Amino acid sequence: MDARSYVEANASGFFDALKEWLAIPSISADPARHGDVRRSAEWLAAHLRETGFPVTEIWETASAGDGEAGQGAGLPTVFAEWPAGDPAAPVILVYGHHDVQPVEPLEEWHSAPFEPVERDGRLLARGASDDKGQVLFHALGVRAALAASGRSAPPVTIKLLIDGEEESGSPSFAGLLRRQRARLDCDVIVVSDTTMWSEDVPSMCTGMRGLIDAQIDLTGPGRDLHSGSFGGAVPNPLHALAALVAGLHDDQGRVTLPGFYDDVLPLTQEERDLFARLPFDEKAWLADAGDSRALAGEAGYTTLERIWARPTAEINGMWGGHTGPGPKTIIPREAHAKVSFRLVADQEPADVAVTLRDYVAEHTPPGIEARVTFSGPGVRPSHSPIQSPAVRAARGAMARAFGRDILFTREGGSGPEADLADILGAPLVFVAVGLDSDRIHAPNEKVEMGLLLKGAESAAYLWEDMAAAAGELTSGREQRP
Amino acid sequence: MDARSYVEANASGFFDALKEWLAIPSISADPARHGDVRRSAEWLAAHLRETGFPVTEIWETASAGDGEAGQGAGLPTVFAEWPAGDPAAPVILVYGHHDVQPVEPLEEWHSAPFEPVERDGRLLARGASDDKGQVLFHALGVRAALAASGRSAPPVTIKLLIDGEEESGSPSFAGLLRRQRARLDCDVIVVSDTTMWSEDVPSMCTGMRGLIDAQIDLTGPGRDLHSGSFGGAVPNPLHALAALVAGLHDDQGRVTLPGFYDDVLPLTQEERDLFARLPFDEKAWLADAGDSRALAGEAGYTTLERIWARPTAEINGMWGGHTGPGPKTIIPREAHAKVSFRLVADQEPADVAVTLRDYVAEHTPPGIEARVTFSGPGVRPSHSPIQSPAVRAARGAMARAFGRDILFTREGGSGPEADLADILGAPLVFVAVGLDSDRIHAPNEKVEMGLLLKGAESAAYLWEDMAAAAGELTSGREQRP
Repeated sequence: MDARSYVEANASGFFDALKEWLAIPSISADPARHGDVRRSAEWLAAHLRETGFPVTEIWETASAGDGEAGQGAGLPTVFAEWPAGDPAAPVILVYGHHDVQPVEPLEEWHSAPFEPVERDGRLLARGASDDKGQVLFHALGVRAALAASGRSAPPVTIKLLIDGEEESGSPSFAGLLRRQRARLDCDVIVVSDTTMWSEDVPSMCTGMRGLIDAQIDLTGPGRDLHSGSFGGAVPNPLHALAALVAGLHDDQGRVTLPGFYDDVLPLTQEERDLFARLPFDEKAWLADAGDSRALAGEAGYTTLERIWARPTAEINGMWGGHTGPGPKTIIPREAHAKVSFRLVADQEPADVAVTLRDYVAEHTPPGIEARVTFSGPGVRPSHSPIQSPAVRAARGAMARAFGRDILFTREGGSGPEADLADILGAPLVFVAVGLDSDRIHAPNEKVEMGLLLKGAESAAYLWEDMAAAAGELTSGREQRP
Repeated sequence: MDARSYVEANASGFFDALKEWLAIPSISADPARHGDVRRSAEWLAAHLRETGFPVTEIWETASAGDGEAGQGAGLPTVFAEWPAGDPAAPVILVYGHHDVQPVEPLEEWHSAPFEPVERDGRLLARGASDDKGQVLFHALGVRAALAASGRSAPPVTIKLLIDGEEESGSPSFAGLLRRQRARLDCDVIVVSDTTMWSEDVPSMCTGMRGLIDAQIDLTGPGRDLHSGSFGGAVPNPLHALAALVAGLHDDQGRVTLPGFYDDVLPLTQEERDLFARLPFDEKAWLADAGDSRALAGEAGYTTLERIWARPTAEINGMWGGHTGPGPKTIIPREAHAKVSFRLVADQEPADVAVTLRDYVAEHTPPGIEARVTFSGPGVRPSHSPIQSPAVRAARGAMARAFGRDILFTREGGSGPEADLADILGAPLVFVAVGLDSDRIHAPNEKVEMGLLLKGAESAAYLWEDMAAAAGELTSGREQRP
């Protein structure tokens, strides 16, 4: 029986299992639901055991050193492993998560968020797309691969690492990765927590932007001053802030921080051509963007290139002086801005942080004191080159499952995936079948059931294709930390 | 008996009367004190009657049409008139106010604010300098002038107009002026509500800056957008605002609004020379300016010129997006700024308002909508040319009283004086003996008793000097509205 036939024959059982899992309200952000997060982990471990994984474990994350002091809620991660018959075969680690977002506002849901409902080929429930459905298709996929090959072990070693705190910022995750570094050793990391362009245009994500954010605080006089008595003769912190902020971009929409673009990996012509094949509807995109009335951004790039493959500087907030009703003619003592930079490979958040500090110091006028405070070390961008062996294998597997060419996208947002790749020393590929229309994090989350089955089929092919590319995939082993 | 001897002989009675008046807590901002404001008006009218003013009236201000709807508290103005013996003599109107500022924080007063205390030649009480002491010296001054001349009527017609709502923004005042236009007709307006450079450096104020203020509101997307999904591809209202604000000044500290300086009356070399004779202590001035760490402003002008004689643009407040703790990576839907312009003669607030509107409209990028809202029509600048007959007469009178040359200052702040001059069609002169160190509007307000007596003496000479300049002072009568 080929993989597709196996997936189709077992679809009904797959969805029954998924519905069981979706009924567990594993909301990591809600302390009252932490028992359910644990139940969810136990359900998954049991399901993977039934699937045939010889190793299924529940890893606690509350250990000292797993995260920042006091941050980790200690919600369990599920680990499973199914060794390949050939010990030299590539090792693939699948990353996903089993916790879900809160469900408020509850009154906007058309059916109860934890009572999964099928409607017109869609499964509606919190977590259906993000991320339980996408985790579970891997279990079906590995069974389909075994059915197709007639063997009792997969052609690659498969490890599953399913986080229980992802929707709460994975505070314990980096600590856990470091602690379990040896057992998580792998040649490729498969992430199944992103989206495709559309149901009709299957695609693979090949990167996420990084992030560094800061607060800029300027102080001038020791108190608010009367603008009649002093106006025009002392520096005004709001003027200084406006100049700092306005100076962050040139008239071409480029960020002016010295060296900001030095480490940016340019888009290849092939990537630009592939992006351009995506059917981009500018009007619909602007409507999605809160009914924005115009496009804007860095000259020389399309909208998709701007949000996926180019770094940005955005002011997220700004305040100072009198912000209440009516006039108050003061020179304020302080001015503040929150700024964040989305970064792309191979920019380093720490480098941008240094450049921002220098920029602010150099552009702060006499009489004003500036402080730049970063909320954390930032998030590194992730990037999977489209000609890398892992991406080629995954693209081939998806193309077989979907029966069409697979295009490439990226994500403009940021996630911990780069840390995963960095700590484990392995490249990332994003194999996922979610859609932007899945309403993840919002009421009435759904998943396209047909796409989950395509995901399972892709996974089934993926193991074969990765086994075939073993030489290329395992060539980096010696360099791993 | 000459004027000085008369003033000295009657000083004790003068201060007794002033203490009686200062004991009345005429706080216009406090509705619970409105009865006291009325008692204060009645006290003053009675005192002026005793002084010899043939006409003393209490004018109600609550009439319909006196102010903006609902704004006027209806607190009484005192009007008094003492006609000259010669009906053709100049008519001088003295403007001041009998209401006082609130006294909070009460615990910072070293003596009760409405129990006047003499200490080391100073009289301490709320209103001692601002403005009861400076109103009352005119009563002593007119008696001294009569004593010196031996006549029973002053050499000029003296009118007193003593506001009861000045510390509450004089909401009814313009209406009252228009209603009583005929009875207030005058050739010169004397304002006794400003300060001198210092006890050792007597000076006259020759102008106050005008004011126009606005709120700028920019709106972009219909909601806050995720800066990962949309950042770098739609316009950010905070960027647009920062550029608008930063663009208001050039690198020489000049305001960039087109035509902003066209109507500015340049300082004459004589004025600049006289300003330069004032002993300006930069370090002390910076300490006063909330311990500001540096001077700033329009290139080519001294600090005093910048705050007194040059117009400014100051951002008084700015806000938009996330202003709470921690990061929030959004492109905000809105951005706001409060801006105010201090104006100098002969700028018109209405003209600047039009220019600001145009500037904002021209500099708002595609996709952002801008709105500019003015809080009111603004305040016109006032200016008394130093070579005008009224200023020359007043300067001469003060020079005789103080026995030294009188220098010139201006005030950086704004007051309703220009309206007074405009509605009555007469020039302003500022004859006042307050000091910046009098702590007006603050706890422990005081007045230098010796300076109040110099004020009375100045007033006594002023009437003679103005009578002597009758030809010049009354030459504008035909042009009056």
